[in-house]
Amino acid sequence: MLYNVFSTEIFIQGCNFTMSLAPWRSAIAHSLHRNRSLVYARYLQLATVRANGRPANRTVVFRGFLEDTNQLKFITDARSEKADEIQQQPWAEVCWYFPNSREQFRLAGSLTLVNNYDISDLQSARIKVWQELSDAARLQFAWPDPGKARIQEAEAFTPPPPDPTQPLPNFCLLLLDPVQVDHLELRGEPQNRRIYHFDENQSWSCAEVNP
Amino acid sequence: MLYNVFSTEIFIQGCNFTMSLAPWRSAIAHSLHRNRSLVYARYLQLATVRANGRPANRTVVFRGFLEDTNQLKFITDARSEKADEIQQQPWAEVCWYFPNSREQFRLAGSLTLVNNYDISDLQSARIKVWQELSDAARLQFAWPDPGKARIQEAEAFTPPPPDPTQPLPNFCLLLLDPVQVDHLELRGEPQNRRIYHFDENQSWSCAEVNP
Repeated sequence: MLYNVFSTEIFIQGCNFTMSLAPWRSAIAHSLHRNRSLVYARYLQLATVRANGRPANRTVVFRGFLEDTNQLKFITDARSEKADEIQQQPWAEVCWYFPNSREQFRLAGSLTLVNNYDISDLQSARIKVWQELSDAARLQFAWPDPGKARIQEAEAFTPPPPDPTQPLPNFCLLLLDPVQVDHLELRGEPQNRRIYHFDENQSWSCAEVNP
Repeated sequence: MLYNVFSTEIFIQGCNFTMSLAPWRSAIAHSLHRNRSLVYARYLQLATVRANGRPANRTVVFRGFLEDTNQLKFITDARSEKADEIQQQPWAEVCWYFPNSREQFRLAGSLTLVNNYDISDLQSARIKVWQELSDAARLQFAWPDPGKARIQEAEAFTPPPPDPTQPLPNFCLLLLDPVQVDHLELRGEPQNRRIYHFDENQSWSCAEVNP
């Protein structure tokens, strides 16, 4: 069992194990705080690889960390291209730029898509995220197929509000479990850059590198 | 020869051909104007694919369009990982979010790296971009190897200023030639999304799709 300065012991599902709060978590928390005046400081860019081997890149909204883990939460629509792409190639890299503090985080890791048919323990997390969404955010999952030819009838985009307690079937929770985090501070002297790496011993190391 | 409403005829290198100003160019120009108060409205995220098939994603600065083309200009260091990655897989997708106007552009296309050894007509464009950089931006190309173990001596990051007229050998111009542009306006009614596509007839088409 691993113990390090970042560890906190927790008890889940009958297994007593050590949950490590990754060392880059405090840096992200600090950046979120320093950029809290900007709503779009929670927007970041998610890169994945398409079936044809070419990259895809789009803005997603950070929805916090999955409880007792280092996994970032996002949401997506099962009808979107990225839902398919992720099933084929779960590897991703998000790029998160914080304008006020002039910092960039690049987080690489694998994605887990939690859809309507998921029977794991993550289903309750999916339902909870749905319940925490705004009405406007929930409504988008009742809109016509994203990326398909535009439905001209305006009523298609003003459907009845979905049940706020039970997710629509196409609503998905998306989790990113980072194994490498590259943190660049443009305001350093001259700049600071650290690379955090999750190694084969299941522990995080950190190296200072040239910017 | 193709003529359409977006075409302007130009004469380059003895060949008389039609240079099409792509229809999405006016949308980008409009967004840059509406977000001109934010220096970071010129920052965007560039996704590429690594040799191991996993995505990479980082922030780059938009440096304008290459004269008489629809190619976006960026700069990079020949010593950076992306310089190698691009040589192996030139396909890329940039994600460009404009905070003030709440718009996203996703531009997919192929990258061209113009390095010190390039003997094409693009060499003069590389030199011109170098000459237009700030002293601070040029200085970064004289810093120690990016991503390598941190050089602790502060003097390594305060080298003599490089020649402002002649680029350092590791300075590269990076060009993105888009073939698809996905423009999402979050402030539409309810939202607007258009996909521009460069087809086999070498002309741009545009389709309205569901957001």
